[in-house]
Amino acid sequence: MGIVVQKFGGSSVADAAGVKRVAQRIINTRREGHDVVVVVSAMGDTTDELIDLANEVTPLPPPRELDMLLTAGERISMAVLAMAIQSLGHEARSFTGSQAGVITDAEHGRAKIIDVSPGRITAALAEGAIAIVAGFQGVSQTTKDITTLGRGGSDTTAVALAVALDAEVCEIYSDVDGIFTADPRIEPRARKVPRISYEECLEMAAQGAKILHLRCVEYARRYDMPIHVRSSFSEKEGTWVVPADQVRVDDTEKDTAMEEAIITGVAHDRSQAKITVVGVPDKVGEAASIFRAIADAQINIDMIVQNVSAAATGLTDISFTLPRGEGQTAMSALSKLQGSVGYERLQYDDSVGKVSIVGAGMSSAPGISARFFEALSDAGVNIEMISTSEIRVSVIVTETQVVDAVNAAHATFNLGSDEVEAVVYGGTGR
Amino acid sequence: MGIVVQKFGGSSVADAAGVKRVAQRIINTRREGHDVVVVVSAMGDTTDELIDLANEVTPLPPPRELDMLLTAGERISMAVLAMAIQSLGHEARSFTGSQAGVITDAEHGRAKIIDVSPGRITAALAEGAIAIVAGFQGVSQTTKDITTLGRGGSDTTAVALAVALDAEVCEIYSDVDGIFTADPRIEPRARKVPRISYEECLEMAAQGAKILHLRCVEYARRYDMPIHVRSSFSEKEGTWVVPADQVRVDDTEKDTAMEEAIITGVAHDRSQAKITVVGVPDKVGEAASIFRAIADAQINIDMIVQNVSAAATGLTDISFTLPRGEGQTAMSALSKLQGSVGYERLQYDDSVGKVSIVGAGMSSAPGISARFFEALSDAGVNIEMISTSEIRVSVIVTETQVVDAVNAAHATFNLGSDEVEAVVYGGTGR
Repeated sequence: MGIVVQKFGGSSVADAAGVKRVAQRIINTRREGHDVVVVVSAMGDTTDELIDLANEVTPLPPPRELDMLLTAGERISMAVLAMAIQSLGHEARSFTGSQAGVITDAEHGRAKIIDVSPGRITAALAEGAIAIVAGFQGVSQTTKDITTLGRGGSDTTAVALAVALDAEVCEIYSDVDGIFTADPRIEPRARKVPRISYEECLEMAAQGAKILHLRCVEYARRYDMPIHVRSSFSEKEGTWVVPADQVRVDDTEKDTAMEEAIITGVAHDRSQAKITVVGVPDKVGEAASIFRAIADAQINIDMIVQNVSAAATGLTDISFTLPRGEGQTAMSALSKLQGSVGYERLQYDDSVGKVSIVGAGMSSAPGISARFFEALSDAGVNIEMISTSEIRVSVIVTETQVVDAVNAAHATFNLGSDEVEAVVYGGTGR
Repeated sequence: MGIVVQKFGGSSVADAAGVKRVAQRIINTRREGHDVVVVVSAMGDTTDELIDLANEVTPLPPPRELDMLLTAGERISMAVLAMAIQSLGHEARSFTGSQAGVITDAEHGRAKIIDVSPGRITAALAEGAIAIVAGFQGVSQTTKDITTLGRGGSDTTAVALAVALDAEVCEIYSDVDGIFTADPRIEPRARKVPRISYEECLEMAAQGAKILHLRCVEYARRYDMPIHVRSSFSEKEGTWVVPADQVRVDDTEKDTAMEEAIITGVAHDRSQAKITVVGVPDKVGEAASIFRAIADAQINIDMIVQNVSAAATGLTDISFTLPRGEGQTAMSALSKLQGSVGYERLQYDDSVGKVSIVGAGMSSAPGISARFFEALSDAGVNIEMISTSEIRVSVIVTETQVVDAVNAAHATFNLGSDEVEAVVYGGTGR
């Protein structure tokens, strides 16, 4: 049997009891005959506590030293996990990102993996040991300094190691049973999806579903590494994230009522705000000036809508959405433009939410958008903005109607199971 | 000006406020024109907390993983200290033991330094940065695994780096003003010693004075590296630990009443226990059997006394002292010998204390022991055992008389200052 890479998030190893439970689970996989490589995040709230400590000393911790500090978190969890495995009678050895050969660029706090040279990991496996690797960290190729990978870093470490070791699968464990058709906290009939394509998974994540980070899915897609998203609290099969051509076949085998397969799931996102620039003169280059100012402020915007200008006034409105945390920065960047662009005023609204339907099937099924909008209309939900891609339709609605919108979409596309599945839902850690 | 190595213990960097205070202190030295290399221990009780965590998972943590775990402590303190220095406007860079080139053998938990290759430290200094190095840790030359140096490890790291960098001095900071003629907690007239030889310092440490660890003093003596023991809470000069030929000259300059210089200080130790093997047949090889059994149990013994045997019975008593924590092990090892050695019984006493006078001057001054014993007699202190070296006389007394014995010795050799110096007293961390 081949190599299995297993990644456990901070909530799975939050305390000694969690560490022991995870250790037993790892040993079970080893006993099945697999070589096992484990990637682990920092225990529980360790990372937040270390950030708090840094902020007690300085409001702007230097990135090199912040990385040095934060990597202490995984050093603790990986050593304790290796101890727990050894106490259960199996050989285990922990390795830092650097020791595991995770080579990155020198961008502290958001380093990119540029190479993985897992010589010490393969040596440990060859000696029969389980290898425990610190997630989220690496070492800079140029400066030899310790780096961290930023958000989604541990998931990405796991996939990158799986690829470098030519593993059979990369298993990502969290406190959720898998990827669901919607967030079970607001949609009680949400159903676990057995298989999903990389592309759909990317859209779900991008539209706010807190499952896998974009980055790790992109890495897996590039190298065709299957990801198995599952819970560390149960033995159930989770969700397989695989190439698109492996999704439909299996789903067909399991379920011949294929209408459901058009839409994979409903994602929602409450982290965005909407800015409207009211009364922009409808001249060439005005929109460009506005978005250049936003880009210069390093703000990523999501959806953009420009109304048709009223012929009588020659003025138009431009709306766009952006992360709430960047709202103030964007507003002040735009304020400076009022003189040159000559718009009338700015409107800021952070009580909006985004609801998206995602599914590879919709590209060949006409009328999906219409059916989505009708369902929202029937539920009394007002649509403020719309954007689409080949496998997604997103709408901006007022925040208080997000749950109604999710429920309406979930029902109209028959995504629900007949029974309410009991699940724990949360993030996958970093 | 040359390089100064400064070592700060865990109590000096116990919290954010302590870290900032130490950072300012380091910068002051840098502003004087020195290149500064700082060795730092884990913050406050971090190491104990990590050990507790390990013990929650397994009663016997594997040494390789325990080292990996514990080194997270210094990783945190060094990164935070580097941040604090940078926030005060000076460049600073933190380095793990491995990055600093501290090469050790592979004995986890008590590794010995076998080489120091501080290339990255000298590069950082050349760029004008202050280098912060994790104490207590290194990397194994053979296995490339992370090691810890065991007790006194951070002090030893500091001295070893000072030697490798050809520093002017190795400053060891703690919450004590320096080395005193006795523990100020029990001898209010204790006086700070301005200079002390490596040999005297070793004897003081070996006899229980909680100042510097034997290991770091031995390292400094081997390479003639001056150590300056001082407080991180004051700017006062502390105690210089230097070659013997540099001690007397300076003391003479400062103080012409030289009688005091015969004895440097009084040390005491309450960590020992006494075992007496009663009624040992006075035959060749019986004592050897007893101490072979103790050695086989990996117990270090300190003082040994064998009484003259009573001619009538042909039996003798053998007493020795050992660390209290090893008392039970020693007693059971000896119990197994009763059949072969044929002694009458064992006595165990852990309410003893050791009081020692230390001073290079005594080797050329007759009658020191007599004066010491007379002073104890005058104070009503009963002597249970005696041992001597060229620069030390130690006695074992009952624990309740330790303070009386220290005070009597301190007074008879005129060690006290006229005023009571206000000092904080504690350990130097690890």
